[in-house]
Parts: sequence; structure tokens; C-alpha cells
Amino acid sequence: MNTKERILEAALVLFNDRGERNVTTNHIAAHLGISPGNLYYHFRNKSEIVYEIYLEYERLVDQTLEVPTDHELTIEDKANYLEAIFEGMWVFRFLHRDLAYFLESDDRLIERYSEFSQRCLENVGSIYYGLRRSNIIDISDQEITALAINSWLVATSWATYLRTADYDPKLEDQITRDRLRRGIYQVFALEKPYLNEHVKEEVERVQLSFLEK
Amino acid sequence: MNTKERILEAALVLFNDRGERNVTTNHIAAHLGISPGNLYYHFRNKSEIVYEIYLEYERLVDQTLEVPTDHELTIEDKANYLEAIFEGMWVFRFLHRDLAYFLESDDRLIERYSEFSQRCLENVGSIYYGLRRSNIIDISDQEITALAINSWLVATSWATYLRTADYDPKLEDQITRDRLRRGIYQVFALEKPYLNEHVKEEVERVQLSFLEK
Repeated sequence: MNTKERILEAALVLFNDRGERNVTTNHIAAHLGISPGNLYYHFRNKSEIVYEIYLEYERLVDQTLEVPTDHELTIEDKANYLEAIFEGMWVFRFLHRDLAYFLESDDRLIERYSEFSQRCLENVGSIYYGLRRSNIIDISDQEITALAINSWLVATSWATYLRTADYDPKLEDQITRDRLRRGIYQVFALEKPYLNEHVKEEVERVQLSFLEK
Repeated sequence: MNTKERILEAALVLFNDRGERNVTTNHIAAHLGISPGNLYYHFRNKSEIVYEIYLEYERLVDQTLEVPTDHELTIEDKANYLEAIFEGMWVFRFLHRDLAYFLESDDRLIERYSEFSQRCLENVGSIYYGLRRSNIIDISDQEITALAINSWLVATSWATYLRTADYDPKLEDQITRDRLRRGIYQVFALEKPYLNEHVKEEVERVQLSFLEK
């Protein structure tokens, strides 16, 4: 791993642990035992670091949402998509803690993010079309458009929900891996009414496993 | 209207127009043509003003979500609930622009808001139970719990969605009344699969009216 990659990795750890607002480039350099000058050689400022980490996150989600071309979509695929998306949110949780803030503080980010979101919505739509072709769900085109947006809203707002409506004063950090994974149950709930009869029982079993965790 | 009420009203206008972060107590006093000292007599600082406005918002939503006791719930009631909730979001839009930020900057707010949210989720649940009693929807208790949370997530994240995923570079302000009202279409979409056959057509007509606006 080269220095640039080590800086990004350390920044992600510190941002997740302490919140991006509380971490300076000097903290990151000290954490790695390198000089601030060495860090500045790679990144002019903290925004550049946030931007690079954001790009990593974007690549991860883009890869995750690719529809397989070698087989018809299965219920396992469906669960795997959601697990991967929520795992990505966990790994990059500092971004989801304060997404609107990051986006509005950097013009490059807001334009990239809206393009990325529209691409994701199309990909999520393609997944629902795939599940319809596999006879897993019964749903109209118009319903797919609305369902894709609602899935997006539920998934991307889940971290905020944990920090606000579901705030637990006993927890030091509101976003734990297990609490985050309960969001998967909620996305399953959105899709559930469209399931065909022969898959209902199996999908419900998978859905409930995310509530119990 | 007394001075205290006038301060709250002016603050709401300025917060909505310019964003709370860009408005000082001096701006509010100047806007009203009163001295900063007069304003401080009523509110020690800007957080106190935000807190009072938040309490107004909370009262409005609590009243809105009361289930009527004089008649069975109708499709009109359902549409009226959503219109009133989204109208409240419009009137108090500065809060929804930056909710997590406000909540985390004031300990009183976060505790109040999580209690308020849990109360809302119960009330939204009661509305779904009412719609089931009126034979408008067919849904299990467990599905009602998940649907209430998902409605909450969709409604409360809609303003953020407009500012991020649905960001339009041509707009000076991403949150317009019409864009906000499209969120009502999305909440209808959540409930649609549970509708009983005899009301589907009527509800769909109401739902589409929010998309066209």
C-alpha cells in the first residue's frame, strides 16, 4: 500500500470513529506517523481526502448494483444486494452521518452525487425488472419507478433515522452495525406486497433474519 | 401579535429564505425594526428561537395526526393527512433542511424529537389500523409497524432527497412547494399494494394528482 492509500485508509477510520468535523489533516498525519508536509504532498486539504473517499464509495455501490448477466435473478441475489449496500454504508458511515452537509460544502460532490443517485435509481429499477422476469415479483412499470425511489429513500435515510427518531440515549454511537442492518428489514418490507405467492414464505424468512440480528 | 410572537414569525421567514446558519439574532431584530436588546429580552440566543419554532412544528404535527373519533376513516382523510404533513414541512422547511444538525446541536431537541417521532409512528400506525377498520386496506399488524416506519422515512427524507439525489442545478432553491408535494405521491405508493380492490381506482386518481402538480 502506498502513502496515498494509507492516508485514505487512516482518514476513513478516523472520520468514522470521531466524525469528519472533529478530524484535521494533522490528526491523520499523526495517526500515520508521517509529517503534515508529506500528507499535503498527496492531498491539498481535507476536502480532497473526503472527495477521494467518496469516489471509492461510489465505485463500490456501482459495482454492487450491477445486474448479473449470466443467470436470472434469485431471492439470494436480492438479499445479497441489500447486504452489500448496507455493508457499504457501514464501512463509509461517516458519509451517511452527514451527507447533505458534505454535498453542499463541495460543488463537485453535489453534481457527482445527483448523477450517481440517478444511475443507482436506474440500476435498482433494473433489479426489480429482473426480479419480475424471474417471476419473483408482480409489479407494473410505474410501480417499479416509485418503488425504486422509495427503496432509495429508506436505505439512504436509515442512518439518519437511527440518529434522530430512533435515538437511544444509552448508546455512545447511534450507528452500530446491527442497528444499521435493521434497515434491510425495512427495504424488504417495501417489496413484500409485490412478491408472488410461491416465494412469500422463503422471502419472509430471509426478511425476519435482519430484524432479529 | 406580541413582540415574542413577531420575533418567532420573522425568524421563521428568514430561516426559510436564507437558511438558519446564515441568519443572526441581529438580522432578526433589524428585520423587525426592534433593538437587539429587545430581542434578547425575549430570547437569550438563537437556539432558544429555533427551539420555540420546533415546538410549534411539533404541536402542528401532533394535531394533524389525531385520528378522528366521530367517523370512520375515509380516503379523503388519508389524503388530507398527507397534505397537512407536507404543508407543515413546507412552512417549517428550514428545520427539514438540516434536521440532524439541529438535533445534535441541542440536547433538549434530540430527546424531544425522538419522543415526538415515536409518538408520530404510533399515530401513523393508528391511522393504518383505522383504514383497515374502514375496509380501505388489507394488512397485517406486523406489516403496519413496518409500513408506518417506511412512511415516516419517505416523508422525513423527501426534502433531503430533493437537495441531493434529485438536485437540479437550474434551481436556486431545491425545495419548492411543488417539488415537496411530489413526496405525497411516494407515500401513496407505499400504501398502494395494500388497498382493497374497490378503492384502488379512486386512490390511484388521488395519488396521480400529486405527481402532476
